Amino acid sequence: MNNFDLNAYLSAQREKINTAIDGFLFQSIKPRRIINAMRHSVMAGGKRLRPILCLAAAEAVGDPPDDVINTACALEMIHTYSLIHDDLPAMDNDSLRRGQPTCHVAFDEATAILAGDALHTLAFEILSSNVLSKKNNSTKYLLVIHTIAAAAGVNGMIEGQMRDMAAEGHRLGLEDLEEMHALKTGALIEASIVAGAIMGDGSQKQIKQLKVFAKNIGLAFQVTDDILNIEGDPRVLGKEVGTDQARQKNTYPSTLGIKSSKAFAKKLVNSALQALNYFDNRSDPLRAMAHYIIARKK
Amino acid sequence: MNNFDLNAYLSAQREKINTAIDGFLFQSIKPRRIINAMRHSVMAGGKRLRPILCLAAAEAVGDPPDDVINTACALEMIHTYSLIHDDLPAMDNDSLRRGQPTCHVAFDEATAILAGDALHTLAFEILSSNVLSKKNNSTKYLLVIHTIAAAAGVNGMIEGQMRDMAAEGHRLGLEDLEEMHALKTGALIEASIVAGAIMGDGSQKQIKQLKVFAKNIGLAFQVTDDILNIEGDPRVLGKEVGTDQARQKNTYPSTLGIKSSKAFAKKLVNSALQALNYFDNRSDPLRAMAHYIIARKK
Repeated sequence: MNNFDLNAYLSAQREKINTAIDGFLFQSIKPRRIINAMRHSVMAGGKRLRPILCLAAAEAVGDPPDDVINTACALEMIHTYSLIHDDLPAMDNDSLRRGQPTCHVAFDEATAILAGDALHTLAFEILSSNVLSKKNNSTKYLLVIHTIAAAAGVNGMIEGQMRDMAAEGHRLGLEDLEEMHALKTGALIEASIVAGAIMGDGSQKQIKQLKVFAKNIGLAFQVTDDILNIEGDPRVLGKEVGTDQARQKNTYPSTLGIKSSKAFAKKLVNSALQALNYFDNRSDPLRAMAHYIIARKK
Repeated sequence: MNNFDLNAYLSAQREKINTAIDGFLFQSIKPRRIINAMRHSVMAGGKRLRPILCLAAAEAVGDPPDDVINTACALEMIHTYSLIHDDLPAMDNDSLRRGQPTCHVAFDEATAILAGDALHTLAFEILSSNVLSKKNNSTKYLLVIHTIAAAAGVNGMIEGQMRDMAAEGHRLGLEDLEEMHALKTGALIEASIVAGAIMGDGSQKQIKQLKVFAKNIGLAFQVTDDILNIEGDPRVLGKEVGTDQARQKNTYPSTLGIKSSKAFAKKLVNSALQALNYFDNRSDPLRAMAHYIIARKK
């Protein structure tokens, strides 16, 4: 851990992930608008947090297969589809994301809806693509698909988004706020880590510990996101700040205050790190990621 | 075939499918708006064409497993998600579907976007759910997922939708029109039939014949849809008519004329039936469905 170079690690993983996503979205000789729109959003230089966590979890439990990179890409596509739809005028109506015009601004609303849908479907096409070549270990791939679909769906990410919208303008208690975030961002972050561990043939005990790790960093990530929406630099962040307050969103700073929110995020990261005590130094990237999640500026 | 009672068959299959979909979307003690929105669209009394074709294809090739009904439900959910998104103001801006207000009219735009997304994800959650219980035959389930995802995605249904939008207001040649429909509606109809055949452990030769059947009825379905948009009764159809012409959509009647379009649909059904010569009387439901597809009034 002491000598772990997080920046080098993140750069290397991002490059690996970007190259792989690029390969899934190549343009044929006759370029297609839908592919351009998908690429616009998914190649816009995101942090790649979910895919990196997936790869790091696979490493932490053992010797992951080469195609864990596909799982990682699929997770980023699901995350990006949710951002494209969240940014739509009928939802958050955001015009800037990852420092770029949002998909519906760069293209049009109909194309943005379909680009989101297409990334969503492509994720499952990729997650099931092992069947075309190796046709072994199918149970493992099916379990990864089920883990991700359950987290992204109506009992996970989508329900979180519904609650977030429903809560705009009136106050949530701390418990409801935590539950909302556990659904909205926590579920897919946890699924990213669990999917990586399944791909790396992690044991039940390892997966159990990684879930504790995931729940803690998932919430720490959200608390930090809320803080950055107040204190962040929009040029670094790649999106507008102050939007949560303008929309009367329920956030940790609005509920706990900034100072307590920061202390809470730190406490969560410590709990996350504790859950990793069970692992050897192959989990160093996960440890470093936990620190990164609250130290990040974007 | 002669004594096959299509109406009784369709009613029985629809009831089976509706009961199963209902079970996937039950409300907990604390009712949730997202589930209400999903139910509103998916329980609105659709024809259930894709799931019935899936079940019929599974029957045609052999003795299908009980959970082919799950595959059928997932297909209907993917179809319904695509309708919810197509109906949005930014896309077709339709206010009536299956005789009911469209999802964004009955709820709101944001909820409709998320209800579509949630049905989309739920389909893949269901398709992978075998892994939670039996954990055998996983390769088969993975192949079904891949077949459906490939058909619904950027090289299938979504590209068809993009081409449909791009073509509004200018004329397509017959070949481009056919290709657009093969993508927009044909791909998922074909996947419904192929997925059923995979679930029923159909042979390669059987699947090959069923693909020919599917391509022909898929196009016949679309030609009939175009005709119903001109000659249909909106009260029976459950949606507005004349909308294609108003939007200057490319349709078979606008390209070939009504009379030739009807003759073309009939020819396609005959080709579809020929592809079934290879099968025994267990394919009678498929044969009857082929006739139904052009005779239907909604």
